[in-house]
Amino acid sequence: MNISIITYFLGWVLGIEGALMILPCVVAVIYQETSGFYIAGVALFGLIAGWLLAHRRPANTIFYAKEGFVSVALSWIVLSFVGAMPFYISGEIPMLEDAFFEVISGFTTTGASILSDVEALSKCMLMWRSFTHWIGGMGVLVFILAVLPMAGGYNMHIMRAESPGPSVGKLVPKVRATAKILYMIYFFMTVAMFFILLACRMPWFDALCISVGTAGTGGFGVVNASCGDYTVAQQAVTTIFMILFGVNFNAYYLLLIRKPKDAFGSEEVRSYLAIILASILLITWNIHRSFGSVFEAFHHAAFQVASIITTSGFSTVDFDVWPAFSRTILVTLMFVGACAGSTGGGMKVSRVVIAAKTVKKEISSLIHPRSVKVLKFEGKTIEHTVLRSINTYMVAYLLVFGLSVLLVSLDNFDPTSNFTAVAATLNNIGPGLAEVGPTCNFGGFSPFSKYVLMFDMLAGRLELFPMLVLFSPRTWMKE
Amino acid sequence: MNISIITYFLGWVLGIEGALMILPCVVAVIYQETSGFYIAGVALFGLIAGWLLAHRRPANTIFYAKEGFVSVALSWIVLSFVGAMPFYISGEIPMLEDAFFEVISGFTTTGASILSDVEALSKCMLMWRSFTHWIGGMGVLVFILAVLPMAGGYNMHIMRAESPGPSVGKLVPKVRATAKILYMIYFFMTVAMFFILLACRMPWFDALCISVGTAGTGGFGVVNASCGDYTVAQQAVTTIFMILFGVNFNAYYLLLIRKPKDAFGSEEVRSYLAIILASILLITWNIHRSFGSVFEAFHHAAFQVASIITTSGFSTVDFDVWPAFSRTILVTLMFVGACAGSTGGGMKVSRVVIAAKTVKKEISSLIHPRSVKVLKFEGKTIEHTVLRSINTYMVAYLLVFGLSVLLVSLDNFDPTSNFTAVAATLNNIGPGLAEVGPTCNFGGFSPFSKYVLMFDMLAGRLELFPMLVLFSPRTWMKE
Repeated sequence: MNISIITYFLGWVLGIEGALMILPCVVAVIYQETSGFYIAGVALFGLIAGWLLAHRRPANTIFYAKEGFVSVALSWIVLSFVGAMPFYISGEIPMLEDAFFEVISGFTTTGASILSDVEALSKCMLMWRSFTHWIGGMGVLVFILAVLPMAGGYNMHIMRAESPGPSVGKLVPKVRATAKILYMIYFFMTVAMFFILLACRMPWFDALCISVGTAGTGGFGVVNASCGDYTVAQQAVTTIFMILFGVNFNAYYLLLIRKPKDAFGSEEVRSYLAIILASILLITWNIHRSFGSVFEAFHHAAFQVASIITTSGFSTVDFDVWPAFSRTILVTLMFVGACAGSTGGGMKVSRVVIAAKTVKKEISSLIHPRSVKVLKFEGKTIEHTVLRSINTYMVAYLLVFGLSVLLVSLDNFDPTSNFTAVAATLNNIGPGLAEVGPTCNFGGFSPFSKYVLMFDMLAGRLELFPMLVLFSPRTWMKE
Repeated sequence: MNISIITYFLGWVLGIEGALMILPCVVAVIYQETSGFYIAGVALFGLIAGWLLAHRRPANTIFYAKEGFVSVALSWIVLSFVGAMPFYISGEIPMLEDAFFEVISGFTTTGASILSDVEALSKCMLMWRSFTHWIGGMGVLVFILAVLPMAGGYNMHIMRAESPGPSVGKLVPKVRATAKILYMIYFFMTVAMFFILLACRMPWFDALCISVGTAGTGGFGVVNASCGDYTVAQQAVTTIFMILFGVNFNAYYLLLIRKPKDAFGSEEVRSYLAIILASILLITWNIHRSFGSVFEAFHHAAFQVASIITTSGFSTVDFDVWPAFSRTILVTLMFVGACAGSTGGGMKVSRVVIAAKTVKKEISSLIHPRSVKVLKFEGKTIEHTVLRSINTYMVAYLLVFGLSVLLVSLDNFDPTSNFTAVAATLNNIGPGLAEVGPTCNFGGFSPFSKYVLMFDMLAGRLELFPMLVLFSPRTWMKE
């Protein structure tokens, strides 16, 4: 294990986190909140510790697969540990595990909260809480597009299969250039959303927090009603941007380089939009009697579907009281998730589509055993290794899911709460049903269950394997 | 499509079913029940229709994959249709869909019932109801070991990978010989159980019905309390035989040909017993306070674990009131299921073990990308095609599962009922939780949901693909 490269890497993470804490400090200055000093203190610590660890580049910069995975997993843990400090030392979240939970939920863009009264938090803390979504959403793009190629090219197989157009991951400089473009898209879309919300007369603080939360497909609200108190226009803007941030960012890149045909022809994006549309229509049909008009039912169905499939987790109404059919659709969407290469979580539309295609192919090869058919996605043949990694991912996903539900069930809540609590954290959504429904929070779980759910949030965000590698004894064995 | 071979095949199925209906007719004679005439009438119809369809062997006996799947799927549907007739025309189950549900539940060895009062049925109908378990349990061995080789050797890959010892499926005569031996084991184990239950002073009628129900890992009881009113000894005997019938029958074959080392060395059987033991101990620890003694808790934990993992579905107590942790273990076991090559349902232990191994291998190949490791099961390398078929099976399983829950949720029951109703039928178990818990029944669902659950029972029993092929438009297209 090349320890020096890992600490060098962690140093960078600490430094960047310290620098990013300046934004909530600015909010503290505007609102003249003293709790800003705690954030400033932690920011200073991050900058100094980061400089100490990373000011000198280690002699041996060779980065094997193992170091890559350990660095990614440890980075997220360190990021969360330092990120939780402002909440804990200021006393605004008194329990340490609650502060961890809240911040891991933020960075992983889950949006699950242990707070029953978010309005009790100071504005600067609320800003930092929502800002973690933006950092986490961006962070994934960083790791996938810039960091993981250092780790030996793992994941690039999936990326290549999932991404039409730009041949990502072939050369390090090119990957970095692509990553830069994606950042720019991310940044400008967030800014656009902020100004549109302002134009819809949302207060600037809410608009800022909701924009960064939507961009990261997070889901922390800044008022107790989540998005329930905003106007129809503000909610509609949020709906549209949630859907936009769940699209594979490669589609935007294709639009930028003037290849709209390729962008709109993406099989994943089309499937994603088709699933959204079908779900909205089915739910609208199912719930329209409990609303004043079909339009109102459509509006709320659209918001909730967009919020769940993109794994954002905002809510306008308490969908836990909706009929079972609508709730089942929402729970199903929790697992499907957004597009690969977006800031959303879940299994990803491309994985689900490819998996469904393998079943279709199996059936037709049973009917005609001698016909040889190849699986295609986005017009390209899917390689054997990609299929294997998708299958292994799904199995690992099921195992982590089952084990988590079992451990969480020790708290003796009802099955729906346990099941949806794990579904909402492993898929980085936020609210589940019953005890963890949109009007409730995760505060009722025991510390043990909270740690299990924190693991699930991190595992879900990093697509399982970095966390599994970190906890595998073989990683830490001397060879 | 070679229609004549399919009708020939269906003729045999009808004839055999008619012949098997003689047993409940004997019961009707003993108890002097007039409803026996209905059974006798249907039996006669089966024999005549069977003779008409199958008395002449078709000229073209070539059996391609497509015909094989269609024959298997249609056989089960015809079997169920004719099997439901005695219940329906006698008026003992007045609704047609209920009679279908009950009999499909029987043949697929599910044991889910729509009856709230089973004691209202006549003895001969109860006998036929339980006997369908035995026929269905045996039937699967028939289809897997005798019929499917005609269908081009599909499934033999999995069989070969899963089965240590006897090289099944290589030559048709040898497969038939092996199938015969497995029948003999099945028959003598059932008889042994019957006599041991008699020795434990169970009435002969109950002993007969419980024995055939346990052998097929069915789960229909003949009294309303399922197995709750039997003595501890009778329950313990049932527990042990449930576990025995969930073992891969190849292990018994190995014992018979004096290879105990191979039989006890089977990785699947060992994993199966380890899962059972661990589950019993965990549940005993979790529930012992609500019982008079640890022994009593252990006794009931063992019965319920054996009943669920082997997908039998008998119950001694209402496990729906157990703590969430125990219920979660039971629901997890529903998915694991029994060994491959047994009469039990579920995903099968071997599939779960192999799937877990692929994840372990993936993790170690991420840590050491250059090391080449092969996956082994039962001491043999798992072929690529076997892995692919397991993965495809799991994905198809998830898709059918999700879609079924969605359709059933239209009845607007709570999520736990919907989820466990599908889990209990797709895995051929019987009882679920909440509305379909061990003290309740499936009678509350709408006819539509009942048909969905019937499809799930058949799909679960036939391991998905025959049913999926039957419903695939490509099967019925002219080429």
